Amino acid sequence: MSKIRLTIWSEFVHERRDEIPGRIYPDGMHMQIKRGIECDDFDIRVATLDMPEHGLTDEVLESTDVMTWWGHTAHKLVDDEIAAKVVRRVKQGMGFIALHSAHYSKPFRALMGTDCNLCWRPKNEHAHVWNINPSHPIAKGVPYSFKLDEEEMYGEIFNIPTPDELVFITWWAGGEVFRGGCTFRRQYGKIFYFHPGHETAPSYYNENVLQVIKNAVYWAKPDNAPFVFPTGKKDPEEPIGGE
Amino acid sequence: MSKIRLTIWSEFVHERRDEIPGRIYPDGMHMQIKRGIECDDFDIRVATLDMPEHGLTDEVLESTDVMTWWGHTAHKLVDDEIAAKVVRRVKQGMGFIALHSAHYSKPFRALMGTDCNLCWRPKNEHAHVWNINPSHPIAKGVPYSFKLDEEEMYGEIFNIPTPDELVFITWWAGGEVFRGGCTFRRQYGKIFYFHPGHETAPSYYNENVLQVIKNAVYWAKPDNAPFVFPTGKKDPEEPIGGE
Amino acid sequence: MSKIRLTIWSEFVHERRDEIPGRIYPDGMHMQIKRGIECDDFDIRVATLDMPEHGLTDEVLESTDVMTWWGHTAHKLVDDEIAAKVVRRVKQGMGFIALHSAHYSKPFRALMGTDCNLCWRPKNEHAHVWNINPSHPIAKGVPYSFKLDEEEMYGEIFNIPTPDELVFITWWAGGEVFRGGCTFRRQYGKIFYFHPGHETAPSYYNENVLQVIKNAVYWAKPDNAPFVFPTGKKDPEEPIGGE
Amino acid sequence: MSKIRLTIWSEFVHERRDEIPGRIYPDGMHMQIKRGIECDDFDIRVATLDMPEHGLTDEVLESTDVMTWWGHTAHKLVDDEIAAKVVRRVKQGMGFIALHSAHYSKPFRALMGTDCNLCWRPKNEHAHVWNINPSHPIAKGVPYSFKLDEEEMYGEIFNIPTPDELVFITWWAGGEVFRGGCTFRRQYGKIFYFHPGHETAPSYYNENVLQVIKNAVYWAKPDNAPFVFPTGKKDPEEPIGGE
Repeated sequence: MSKIRLTIWSEFVHERRDEIPGRIYPDGMHMQIKRGIECDDFDIRVATLDMPEHGLTDEVLESTDVMTWWGHTAHKLVDDEIAAKVVRRVKQGMGFIALHSAHYSKPFRALMGTDCNLCWRPKNEHAHVWNINPSHPIAKGVPYSFKLDEEEMYGEIFNIPTPDELVFITWWAGGEVFRGGCTFRRQYGKIFYFHPGHETAPSYYNENVLQVIKNAVYWAKPDNAPFVFPTGKKDPEEPIGGE
Repeated sequence: MSKIRLTIWSEFVHERRDEIPGRIYPDGMHMQIKRGIECDDFDIRVATLDMPEHGLTDEVLESTDVMTWWGHTAHKLVDDEIAAKVVRRVKQGMGFIALHSAHYSKPFRALMGTDCNLCWRPKNEHAHVWNINPSHPIAKGVPYSFKLDEEEMYGEIFNIPTPDELVFITWWAGGEVFRGGCTFRRQYGKIFYFHPGHETAPSYYNENVLQVIKNAVYWAKPDNAPFVFPTGKKDPEEPIGGE
Repeated sequence: MSKIRLTIWSEFVHERRDEIPGRIYPDGMHMQIKRGIECDDFDIRVATLDMPEHGLTDEVLESTDVMTWWGHTAHKLVDDEIAAKVVRRVKQGMGFIALHSAHYSKPFRALMGTDCNLCWRPKNEHAHVWNINPSHPIAKGVPYSFKLDEEEMYGEIFNIPTPDELVFITWWAGGEVFRGGCTFRRQYGKIFYFHPGHETAPSYYNENVLQVIKNAVYWAKPDNAPFVFPTGKKDPEEPIGGE
Repeated sequence: MSKIRLTIWSEFVHERRDEIPGRIYPDGMHMQIKRGIECDDFDIRVATLDMPEHGLTDEVLESTDVMTWWGHTAHKLVDDEIAAKVVRRVKQGMGFIALHSAHYSKPFRALMGTDCNLCWRPKNEHAHVWNINPSHPIAKGVPYSFKLDEEEMYGEIFNIPTPDELVFITWWAGGEVFRGGCTFRRQYGKIFYFHPGHETAPSYYNENVLQVIKNAVYWAKPDNAPFVFPTGKKDPEEPIGGE
């Protein structure tokens, strides 16, 4: 297997502006995610909002097999055209892993066709993440449940299309549940949404969270590339009767 | 049960411009669909592209439970804002039945999050529509298969998200297959795509095609209205430990 | 619409043998479910384990559109042949609503092809049932969540096949979640599993629980009957080339 | 990655009894499948009906990651207990690839919970297999469609549960379609059904058919082993209020 070319994208705003995120993730969440999942099979780049073209030049996009995306306070600052390019690449086969508040990012919403809104509560509370699809490759090595000591509540109603596969359901101390780990296919691209990762909680140090993200990178890599499946006007495979 | 308020929308261009469609559907496809499915349970309006606001005023949209949509040559002439209003109503619960080339209409594509392209061949050929989900309400009264003597080939690859439910698969004389009858849920709205209905073929006179559309209207009606399921910031259901 | 012929089946053992169930359901759970959902659209019979053929004679089975099933302590006393007849009827189109510990009943397990085991805790605790599929007919009139003050914990891992549709997810005070309301199709029959209804808790007096069961009866009724979709050896629809 | 331990099971009756199968597969289909997919990643055994315990001793079963199964004329000769052991292993995580008429084998039917009947026509005819899920790992390297010059028609209605994923749909010269490549999860085991492989047709020499089977072996391998996800009585994760 050739290496999976992974681009870890993050808006990288809270960590430089706000006290708690800056203390938890002094060099940014993306750097902690990178440290947490790097291995011989991955060839990892990071990219952030403040880079030229948000670090997502055509060259970067063309050479990315899987992208993770973290955004929250700066969704609107993401250039529409770059968001559209990301969407286009997903449709061509690039895997896309939407983390935490990326449910509300421009690329994710465009790929879903719904508003992707949900219920939320900013005070961190504890949670149990339940693995309800243990034969799924994204659940590899993940116990039947694991605890998050503090995380922002994201709960139902979650206005997404019916997921192709539901892998994790999260329980919240405050009484809610959440379809917090789920997959979607959009044209040739595989998409995984995973909810942990509030900027004031240390979820990207949690070994189970990291394992899930790492598994998702393997799962989301394009199995075929470049795709040439045809659409448009087409000759018949068979002689059409009556001719 | 109160009546289902149905709006049959059609661009109504081919039938007034082109010879064959004009002969098959002299007063428009929408009128033939209306005649073909009307019954005591439905309260039917028609609306066309050339009406003010395409016949889709706020008042019409607010009082529509289910909309059927036929468009082909004039997708681009549909006003972006009106298309967006239709999408919004679907998300609020309005059923949406996309007919034939409406796979490529603005509302359908926005709801899918994919480009909705497919393979096609303009010469009409014969087809068999297979009912693979006979317990589904949309298949009520429909035989295990039925023939279309002539219809435009629409075939795979069909660039849609994984359907929630697959109801019909179509066989084409030219060697192709097509997931030609399938359902999707988007927020509170139910969506059905059904492929028959090329402007040069008399599919809307076919009793099985009409039965499917009629069934789909019953299926797609909102079961709850108006929806008030919450999103946004939320108080806990339970006291959160540690407070 | 002709009336839906509903048979409410219950083993009716705990209520006659054990103190708490007998106090909550003095004439049996089946009678309380009957009282709770009866309406002009339903023609309801009850049947219990102690009746001849468990009340499920061929005549009863043939004239049943939808059956609800409650069993727990006496699964093994259900005659294998009668269980097989129930399964056969479901495959022919009879709706089947498996309540609470019916996840472990002979008919349900045969229809699922898995062992249908789960995690459980006998002490009743409080729960929140979350409605994650609000456009589904089974969720009609059901709020976005409702509380059960006391119910037996049924939690993940729930060894069922992937449900066709997930309608409710339940939150438990003890930290678990459960896919407690889900649908399956098996040949021509529609199946709904719904978890509330422990024999020591008054869940069948809860108006939301009753609403869900009532909705499920409407949803599970056969849309076509009797089904005559063919299997077996078959003549071609088309002349096969080369003959 | 350690090698995937694959057991190719076949009843091996037609090839020794009937003229045409014997000519096409002189040492059995299982040997041709073996030759067609063997590679460094697989550790392959074959097993046949006539071996002691059909070649499926406890030791073989325990050391099998993925099993392919071909059966047709001798389904009834498969020992019930051995079929039950195969089912048990699938539920524990062993991948299971049901080929051609294995749709009607004891293990597959037990895992599905339906009768798995279908329409069929014994005369071989040509077919096109359409790849409708090109981002799926089982479709890796498979073109958007490929032709089978001769194969036994297997068509809808196919009495299976709704597949978890549909990967291939087959077109038949005689006018039928078939959901001929589809996946299911049952507890910890992944299952793939694939229709080509009639005993009088050389489908297991077709490079695309072999590619699909090979892909399916990779896909179906257990990602976790041994599984220890709990069911049964359980202590709470959280203190339950009121205690």
